[in-house]
Amino acid sequence: MISMNTQKDALQLLKERLATISDIDAAMAVLTWDQQTYMPAGGIAGRSEQLATLSQISHEMLVSDETGKLLESAGEPASGSEDAAIIRLARRDYERATRLPARLVSEISRTRSVAQGAWEKARADSDWGSFASHLEKMVSLQREAAEHLGYEDHPYDALLDAYEPGEKKAHLDHMFAGLKETLVPMIKSLPTDEDREAPLHGNFGERKQEEFSTAVISAFGYDWERGRQDRVAHPFCISFGSPGDVRITTRFDPEWFSYHFFATLHEAGHALYEQGVNPAYSRTPLSGGVSMGVHESQSRLWENLVGRSRPFWTFYYPKLQATFPEAFGEVDFESFYRATNAAYPSEIRTEADELTYNMHILLRYELETSLLEEKLSVAELPEVWNAKMQQYLSITPKNEARGVLQDVHWAAGLFGYFPTYTLGNVLSAQVFDAAVGAHPEIPEDIERGKFDTLRGWLQENLYRHGSLYEPQDLIERTTGKPLDTAPYLNYLKAKFGELYDLA
Amino acid sequence: MISMNTQKDALQLLKERLATISDIDAAMAVLTWDQQTYMPAGGIAGRSEQLATLSQISHEMLVSDETGKLLESAGEPASGSEDAAIIRLARRDYERATRLPARLVSEISRTRSVAQGAWEKARADSDWGSFASHLEKMVSLQREAAEHLGYEDHPYDALLDAYEPGEKKAHLDHMFAGLKETLVPMIKSLPTDEDREAPLHGNFGERKQEEFSTAVISAFGYDWERGRQDRVAHPFCISFGSPGDVRITTRFDPEWFSYHFFATLHEAGHALYEQGVNPAYSRTPLSGGVSMGVHESQSRLWENLVGRSRPFWTFYYPKLQATFPEAFGEVDFESFYRATNAAYPSEIRTEADELTYNMHILLRYELETSLLEEKLSVAELPEVWNAKMQQYLSITPKNEARGVLQDVHWAAGLFGYFPTYTLGNVLSAQVFDAAVGAHPEIPEDIERGKFDTLRGWLQENLYRHGSLYEPQDLIERTTGKPLDTAPYLNYLKAKFGELYDLA
Repeated sequence: MISMNTQKDALQLLKERLATISDIDAAMAVLTWDQQTYMPAGGIAGRSEQLATLSQISHEMLVSDETGKLLESAGEPASGSEDAAIIRLARRDYERATRLPARLVSEISRTRSVAQGAWEKARADSDWGSFASHLEKMVSLQREAAEHLGYEDHPYDALLDAYEPGEKKAHLDHMFAGLKETLVPMIKSLPTDEDREAPLHGNFGERKQEEFSTAVISAFGYDWERGRQDRVAHPFCISFGSPGDVRITTRFDPEWFSYHFFATLHEAGHALYEQGVNPAYSRTPLSGGVSMGVHESQSRLWENLVGRSRPFWTFYYPKLQATFPEAFGEVDFESFYRATNAAYPSEIRTEADELTYNMHILLRYELETSLLEEKLSVAELPEVWNAKMQQYLSITPKNEARGVLQDVHWAAGLFGYFPTYTLGNVLSAQVFDAAVGAHPEIPEDIERGKFDTLRGWLQENLYRHGSLYEPQDLIERTTGKPLDTAPYLNYLKAKFGELYDLA
Repeated sequence: MISMNTQKDALQLLKERLATISDIDAAMAVLTWDQQTYMPAGGIAGRSEQLATLSQISHEMLVSDETGKLLESAGEPASGSEDAAIIRLARRDYERATRLPARLVSEISRTRSVAQGAWEKARADSDWGSFASHLEKMVSLQREAAEHLGYEDHPYDALLDAYEPGEKKAHLDHMFAGLKETLVPMIKSLPTDEDREAPLHGNFGERKQEEFSTAVISAFGYDWERGRQDRVAHPFCISFGSPGDVRITTRFDPEWFSYHFFATLHEAGHALYEQGVNPAYSRTPLSGGVSMGVHESQSRLWENLVGRSRPFWTFYYPKLQATFPEAFGEVDFESFYRATNAAYPSEIRTEADELTYNMHILLRYELETSLLEEKLSVAELPEVWNAKMQQYLSITPKNEARGVLQDVHWAAGLFGYFPTYTLGNVLSAQVFDAAVGAHPEIPEDIERGKFDTLRGWLQENLYRHGSLYEPQDLIERTTGKPLDTAPYLNYLKAKFGELYDLA
C-alpha cells in the first residue's frame, strides 16, 4: 500500500513531468506557427528535423516507465478536483500512446507523409487512381490502430476518442439522423439563385479589411496583449500551453469580402476560448480547449451565430459601408444580409454555407465509418461519394478533385475528425441559446456592438474550465443538458425559413 | 582495446546524439527569435519556461554519462577530417560543461537574472551604488568558474575560450598594445568638429530605408530564400543549425540614416558567413561560424571595409540621392562620405566610429582582466573607468549611465566577450587584404556595385568551413598568416589620415 506522502510526492513529480512535456509541445507549436507564417523556404529541412526531434523527446517522456510508475503511484485525488482531472487526462494520453506499438506509430507516420504527397498530386491532376492504394494502406493501418486502442461497440469509437473524448458512433448516428431528416428537405427546396452573393464581391483593400475585422474581434474581446494575427494560406489558431499567447492567422482576397472576414471571426472564436482558460492550468493537461467539437462550437458561435446575424450587421453594416463606400454604398442592408447568408448546394465543403455544410460532413462520416468496418472498399469510394452528393445535395462534382479528393484528412489519417465539425455546429446553437436564456438582452447588446455579456457568460460557464471536465460533462454544465440538436435545427429553420420562405 | 567497428558505431551514435542536441538548440533559437520579434507581451512567462526546459534537456543530454562514453569510444579519426573536428568540438563542449559544478551553473544563472535587473535599474537612475554588490558577486562567480574550467597562464584564458577558442590573454595584451600605440596619438590629433555628421540627419521614410538597404544586402549576396529580416530593438543575426534559415533583424530611426543602414549591413555580414557554411555540416558542431571574433570580422568587413568605403559609395551614393532627394540632393559626395566616416571621441561604445571603437574595448578588457585577477576592486571601477576614458579618449562621461554602466555584458557574466569585438575589427582588414591580394579587381568591382568576387573568395576561403578548423588555424588558412594588426592599422591610417590630414 502506498502512503499518502508517497502519493503526494508522486503527484508532484508527475505534474513536473507533464509541465516539461507541455513545454516541449508548446515549443513545437511555436516552430509550427513560424513554419506557417514567416519561415523562409530554405528552412524546411531543418525545421522537419527539429520537429521530429522534439516530438520524439515528448513522446518518449510520455510513454516512459517512469511516467507509468508515477501514474500508478499518484493515487486517486478527490473526484472533481483539478488533480483528479490532471491524472485522468495524463492516464488517457499515456494509455493511448502506450497501446499503439512503436512500429505502427512510425508506419502511420511514414504512410501519412507519402499519402499526403500522393494526395496533393492526385488532387492537382484530379486522378483518383494514383491515390487509392495509399488510402487503402492508411485505412488498414487505422483499423489496426483501432484494435490496439480498444473499444466497446465500434472500432470507430477508438479513433473518434482522439478528437472528441467520450463520444461514440452510436450517438453520432443518432445526431446525424436527426439533422438529415430536417435538413435534406430544406436544402432540396432552396431556390437556385446564386447571385445573392454578388454584393460580397468587389474591391477591398487589405489594410481596410484588416482594420475592419480587427475592430470587430477586438470588440468581441480578443486580447492583443496575449495574441497577434498573421497571414497564412490556411488560417488556424494556435496557443503555447497557456492563455498568455494565443495567436490567430488569416488570409485575404482583395475581391471577395467574406474570404478574410469570416475566417478571421472563426479563428478569433477559437482564440477567445483559449485566452479564456484559467491561467492556473498553464503547463498542465487542463490548459487549452477540451475537444475539437467544443472548440469548433466557439469558432462557429462567433462566426455564424454572432457574425452572420441580423443584430450584428444592424450595428456593423453602416460601419462597413463607411469603410467600403464603393462596394457597399449602394447595397441595402437586406441584400447584404442575404448575401452573407446565401445558401445553396455546392461541391466544396470548406466553401459551404451553414445550411448545407453538415451534409458534407454526414457524407464523409458515413463513408469513413463504412471504410473502417469494411462495408465499403476504397475502390468504391468515388462512386459512392457522388451518389451521396446527389442524395443529400442533388449535385454531382465536376471532377474528383472537387469531389472525393478535396480534403486532406483521410490522407493524413485523421479518421474520426470530420464529425467534430458538425458537433461544433450543433453545439454552437445550444451554447448560444443557453447564454441568451441566462441573459435575454444579448441580442440587443449585439445590436449595439456590445459583446461583454455574451463573452462574460461564455468565459464563466465554458472557457475558464479548459480541459477540467470531460466534454459531455462540460456541455451539461454549460447548457444544462446533453448535446441536443433542437436549438441548432430551430436556429437554421428560423433563419433560413425566413430568408428563403421555406415551409 | 576498442575495435574499429565499435569505434565506428560509437561515432555514429555520437553524431546522432549531437544532431539531437543541435535540433533542441535550434528550437531554442527559433523561440528566442520569436520572443525578440513577434511574441506578444503576455507570452513571456510561458516562453521562459519553454526555454528553461529545452535548455535543461540539451544540457543534460550533453553532460550525460552516455555522451562521455561515446566520446571515449569514438576513437581518433584522421587528423584534419570532419569526424576528427566533430569529436574535438564535442569533447570541448562536454568538458567545459562537465567541469562546471551544477551548483555553480545555476548560481551564475540566478545571479545573471538578478544582476541584469539591477543593472537596468541602475543605468536608468545612473546609480552605480545599487549595482556594485551584484557585480561583485558575478566577478567572484566568474573567478570560481575559471578555476573549475582550468587554464595554463591566466584565469581569463578559461573564460575567453568560451567565445574565442584557443585565444589567450598574453596574445591579446600584445595585440592591444600595438593598437594603443598607433591609435591613441591619432585620436588625440582628431579635430573637434562634430558637425560632419549633420548630412546623415533628415527625414527618411522607413519603407524607402528598407528598400535601399535591401537592395544593397541583396547585391552583397544575402539569400532571401534562406533568410528574412524583421524589426527589433537590438539587431542580431540568428540561425537554426543549418545555412537554410539565417535571419537578420534591424531597426529604424526616421531621422537618422546610419541607424538602420549600417546596422543592416552589419547583421547581413554575419548572415553571409552563416549562409555560406557547407550545408553538409548541418546538425553537427561544424555548423555555424567558428568564433565570436571571426564572426565579427565578417559583420565589420561588410559594414565598414565595404559599406563605409569610397568605392561602395561611388556606386551607391547617386542611388541614395535618388532615393532621398530632399535629404541628400544638395549634399556632395565628399561631405556624405566624410559624414559616414566622422571620427571623434565619444562616451558610448555602440555609437563609436571605427577609429575610436577599439579604445572602448581596450578599456573594458583592461578592467575585466584586472577584476578577475583581483588587481582591481568593483568599488574602484567607476573611477578607473573615467581615468582610462581620459587617457585613451580625452573625455569624461557625463554620468555613470553613459560611463561604467553602459553595457550589459558584465551583469550578464560575459567576461571574456569584449575583446572579440576588437579581434573582429583587426581580422576584418586582414581578411579583406587577403581577398584583394587574390583578386586586385575587388575595389573596382565594388565601385561597379559587384560583390561576387569578394563574396565568392570569402565563401571559398572562409565561410564554407564553418567550425571545421580552430579559429587560429582558419585565420592562417584564409589569410596566409596568424592574426596581424598591420593590415588593420594600415587601413585606419590610410583612411583617417586622408580624411583628417593626420600625420
